[in-house]
Amino acid sequence: MKNVTEAATPSGVVVHLDETDPAKHAAVLRNVSNLIDALEPETQIELVIHGPAIGLLLPGSPHNETVRALQNRGLVIDACQNTLRSEHITPEQLIPDAAIVPSGVAHLVLRQREGWAYLRP
Amino acid sequence: MKNVTEAATPSGVVVHLDETDPAKHAAVLRNVSNLIDALEPETQIELVIHGPAIGLLLPGSPHNETVRALQNRGLVIDACQNTLRSEHITPEQLIPDAAIVPSGVAHLVLRQREGWAYLRP
Amino acid sequence: MKNVTEAATPSGVVVHLDETDPAKHAAVLRNVSNLIDALEPETQIELVIHGPAIGLLLPGSPHNETVRALQNRGLVIDACQNTLRSEHITPEQLIPDAAIVPSGVAHLVLRQREGWAYLRP
Repeated sequence: MKNVTEAATPSGVVVHLDETDPAKHAAVLRNVSNLIDALEPETQIELVIHGPAIGLLLPGSPHNETVRALQNRGLVIDACQNTLRSEHITPEQLIPDAAIVPSGVAHLVLRQREGWAYLRP
Repeated sequence: MKNVTEAATPSGVVVHLDETDPAKHAAVLRNVSNLIDALEPETQIELVIHGPAIGLLLPGSPHNETVRALQNRGLVIDACQNTLRSEHITPEQLIPDAAIVPSGVAHLVLRQREGWAYLRP
Repeated sequence: MKNVTEAATPSGVVVHLDETDPAKHAAVLRNVSNLIDALEPETQIELVIHGPAIGLLLPGSPHNETVRALQNRGLVIDACQNTLRSEHITPEQLIPDAAIVPSGVAHLVLRQREGWAYLRP
């Protein structure tokens, strides 16, 4: 019975991004796209962004359209409140539909405690 | 009973490599060697390679002999099919005995769901 | 009952650092500080240091005071014995109160087997 339940609700995945390089951002977004293609459609996938990676979520990033397309496929974007505070960025300045988590690193821990897999490309 | 079973079959380890730098490859191969030395002999260890790291599995890599030696000690090499496709590499072009997984990042998730530890040096 | 027990003893966190760049060291120490702020006070947090990151634990590092302050807040520092041996560093040369683990990468595996979360900033 337990296995049936587990099969019906696959555990989620948190993907960790804290680097500044746009080429790295492109690679991680490709990884997320591959995850969506390969895993069960109901798998929850969150991309947790903190530190110097926050630029990915500003309108000037070259990857705005790619992020939008992944959000439309179900990806949840989590921006770190600690980073926003230290960088003097308000949530309104971010691209649409980014969730705010109090601490990016703590969120990655909490999801793992819930049984989610962790990826740090 | 459960603990006895767990002790008898230690969970495996997936090691994640997606960087291009041969010095990084050397460091990760040293990490794998240290894992083999330190963990129980029956521990399954897989090195999952995707993206720009795929060069480690081509005959031109300076680390071919080190990889061979680690395979002889039980290391399983997993190459990402998505990467092979996008890089126009056929499985026959890889060094011997590399397993092919449909998606490197998804494989890292599936192993964690099976209780394996994850390392991203 | 199980949930009550789990709530009373939150699982720990291992943070993995194997890079040489002092700016990276500063970022990881900020991440650890944010973890301490955000997680329950009784959460065990260990920073596992191996390979070229070992310089963070030598008296010449610019981050000695920050490490000391985090240790005073409960952070455990684990230095890799394999690294000390290959770099010809004795435990006495390290900053005070660094624990020694036989293998940094194996320690990260063992903690995950105990249910700890893993972070690799």
